[in-house]
Amino acid sequence: MLNLDTLNPNVLKAQYAVRGPIVELAQELEKQGREIWYFNIGNPQQLGQPPLTYVREILSLLNNPTVLEHSEKLLSMGYHQDSIETARNIMNENPVGLGAYSQSAGMPFIRQAVADFISQRDNISASADNIFLTDGASKGVDLVLSSIIMERVGIMIPIPQYPLYSADISLFGGTQVPYFLDENNGWELNKDMLEKAYTEAAATGVDVKLLVVINPNNPTGSVLSRRNIEMVLKFAKDHKLMILADEVYQENVYEEGDAFYSFASVADGLGIEIPIFSLHSTSKGYFGECGLRGGYIEMRNVPEEVRLELLKVRSIGLCSNTVGQIATYLMINPPKKGDPSFELYKKEKDKILASMKRKASIIANALDAIEGISCPTPRGAMYLFPKLDLPEIEDSPADFAFAKFLVEETGIVTVPGSGFGQLPGTWHLRMTFLPPEDKIPDLMTNFKQAYQKFIQKS
Amino acid sequence: MLNLDTLNPNVLKAQYAVRGPIVELAQELEKQGREIWYFNIGNPQQLGQPPLTYVREILSLLNNPTVLEHSEKLLSMGYHQDSIETARNIMNENPVGLGAYSQSAGMPFIRQAVADFISQRDNISASADNIFLTDGASKGVDLVLSSIIMERVGIMIPIPQYPLYSADISLFGGTQVPYFLDENNGWELNKDMLEKAYTEAAATGVDVKLLVVINPNNPTGSVLSRRNIEMVLKFAKDHKLMILADEVYQENVYEEGDAFYSFASVADGLGIEIPIFSLHSTSKGYFGECGLRGGYIEMRNVPEEVRLELLKVRSIGLCSNTVGQIATYLMINPPKKGDPSFELYKKEKDKILASMKRKASIIANALDAIEGISCPTPRGAMYLFPKLDLPEIEDSPADFAFAKFLVEETGIVTVPGSGFGQLPGTWHLRMTFLPPEDKIPDLMTNFKQAYQKFIQKS
Repeated sequence: MLNLDTLNPNVLKAQYAVRGPIVELAQELEKQGREIWYFNIGNPQQLGQPPLTYVREILSLLNNPTVLEHSEKLLSMGYHQDSIETARNIMNENPVGLGAYSQSAGMPFIRQAVADFISQRDNISASADNIFLTDGASKGVDLVLSSIIMERVGIMIPIPQYPLYSADISLFGGTQVPYFLDENNGWELNKDMLEKAYTEAAATGVDVKLLVVINPNNPTGSVLSRRNIEMVLKFAKDHKLMILADEVYQENVYEEGDAFYSFASVADGLGIEIPIFSLHSTSKGYFGECGLRGGYIEMRNVPEEVRLELLKVRSIGLCSNTVGQIATYLMINPPKKGDPSFELYKKEKDKILASMKRKASIIANALDAIEGISCPTPRGAMYLFPKLDLPEIEDSPADFAFAKFLVEETGIVTVPGSGFGQLPGTWHLRMTFLPPEDKIPDLMTNFKQAYQKFIQKS
Repeated sequence: MLNLDTLNPNVLKAQYAVRGPIVELAQELEKQGREIWYFNIGNPQQLGQPPLTYVREILSLLNNPTVLEHSEKLLSMGYHQDSIETARNIMNENPVGLGAYSQSAGMPFIRQAVADFISQRDNISASADNIFLTDGASKGVDLVLSSIIMERVGIMIPIPQYPLYSADISLFGGTQVPYFLDENNGWELNKDMLEKAYTEAAATGVDVKLLVVINPNNPTGSVLSRRNIEMVLKFAKDHKLMILADEVYQENVYEEGDAFYSFASVADGLGIEIPIFSLHSTSKGYFGECGLRGGYIEMRNVPEEVRLELLKVRSIGLCSNTVGQIATYLMINPPKKGDPSFELYKKEKDKILASMKRKASIIANALDAIEGISCPTPRGAMYLFPKLDLPEIEDSPADFAFAKFLVEETGIVTVPGSGFGQLPGTWHLRMTFLPPEDKIPDLMTNFKQAYQKFIQKS
């Protein structure tokens, strides 16, 4: 009655390497008492990053607003005056509290705040109606892809990519149109590679509709220049493609001289009016609130009748979780200079970002120093994507075999590059650079020994 | 590039009346300053039901666990000793806190607690592996239906039904196989009506795979007897159907002598081993924590290889929100007799349930007393489903026209029965009985006047 043959075959096709067999093996070893290091997923608080005090003070007050009448006691326990005031303001904006369903698109005052945030960040206009709050950014991707995918609809995705995209395309029955990122040029997008991917797909009858761009990039760590984004937008316009801009790492830019440019702002500058869906999340940046599942999707140049259909689809699931909605609000409304929380907030934020930058460089250098591995220092996001020389392995992609060996030998969990896609004949791993700084030197020594052992035994 | 013609046509087909045009009209009127009464949706805290103190104390502590070291101050602010201890225990079980992604299926200690809850409730065995925590029960429905629906796959749904089911079937491209509930026999399931629906669908080549049952029922307020559930299970077994048991109202049973029986327990008693998916949620019962989006799906008699595929699909969305996960844990682990929180918890719970029972009866009686309307008192869930005599209206279903008139005249928002399905030639409305008790007499007077006015003018 129920077996693999009776399941929707798209379910069987979908793959999601970030939580695949390597992770299952690691969880098994952990149950047996082994120490495991989760380099496989951008989950900062699992790896010791503390939450921001300001955020958690306010969320705790909103979960039990009766305590707001005990200001003195709250202050004596370390709560900041502005946290208490912000919690009171949020209660005024949303008097029903966290326990009621919100509007399907999210609480109106938060959607307005997101619109204001985008306006100020990019110096462009933005409307609350075009913003849907979501349980993390993934749900925004699901919404767009499930609504536009039909048979033979093609979605251009970068290779390497974040495997949510390939998994969703499989689940919804669409066609992947993979374009390679240019590893020799800092993983930027390359017009010829885009054209080649588009043309080959179109030639086989695929109706290519949308181009996914991840900037700053997961897994390569690249940060796109304005010039590169302009090229992509012109390419999309020429081929009548919509853009899905995954911009969840917009706060994770580490190099002096680099900057985050949103696709919405660059398109606005060029006067290009193609539909653009932009994603943001509370899970990344210096916030790292993965478990709260906050985020939003912003739509531009989307006809009103289509926006209403997307809203209807959102309404079937009622609303995203209210704590995640509030977290999204706090992410875009940090304390201001002069507020009692400001100094601590800034200190915590700067510490997290500085540590990420240091760790990115320390791990990249350690990996790059190993003969047979090359690993540039990531300029953005939370990941390294080292290239490894690996021997051919029977019955398995070499990177998968090595990732398995690595977790068995060292407890270090990585994701084989084949889960993200890579140029044939090259092998990579995806690793976060989030593990605690004091553990990294030993872990890198273990990594090196495991790599050398793997090479020798193969 | 993007318009209604280029969207997936399944999106256009999907309807979700609970948040449809009547609600939009109400929101518009509210913006203009009109007082609006949301009888359309089971959203208790929006209508003044307070959250349970125990739950919110613990959630607030877990959001800011640094305050756990200030026990004395917490106690002096009204926190209960056992809330503080439970929060500490949860931190021990899940030391990474709320900010980290959990395992895809949810935190292991909570899944074990759910398994223990089911075992104790039903005196049957249950396994944590078969439990996935979800963002409300809706996401469990999405998971099952999206995984088994393919072209020509039929899903049996009750008429009237909760429109999540019809919407999902449309979105995923399946076929609705509607079976009528027996209005003349307290809306129970009727074997002949089930057979008729199944046979007619099968005759047109539909591959009927799953039967949805909602018990206690939304929108009819019925509570199924063990005998009726046994009939349904035997019917399902005879026709090789899986069961999706929507049991989110299991705590909402109001009549002496009625009891909630889970499909899992009744199947166990009969020795029937068909796949059963059972849903529960933090949004309903006396909990009413809709905004937190907590819930779970339990699977029985599902082959391991299928369970792993469903787990993979869940993993693509990473995990459900952690606050909702904790809320689910607290729902199934209330304070025990003798705990400092126990008396208050019991008082709050009893007050909520007693008020629901009273309101169900007051509203039903008020409606039933209106000439042209019949409305039995609901025995369970949170809704009334009155049957109304209505004149024929040009260009509109009569119930839709009346619901529109009603909100314009009185601010009372209801959902037309046509959004849930009803026997042709009959008209109904779905209304919650959650609005504040002191407002109900006036609102019912307004309802009556609007109904009489509508009849006269038509």
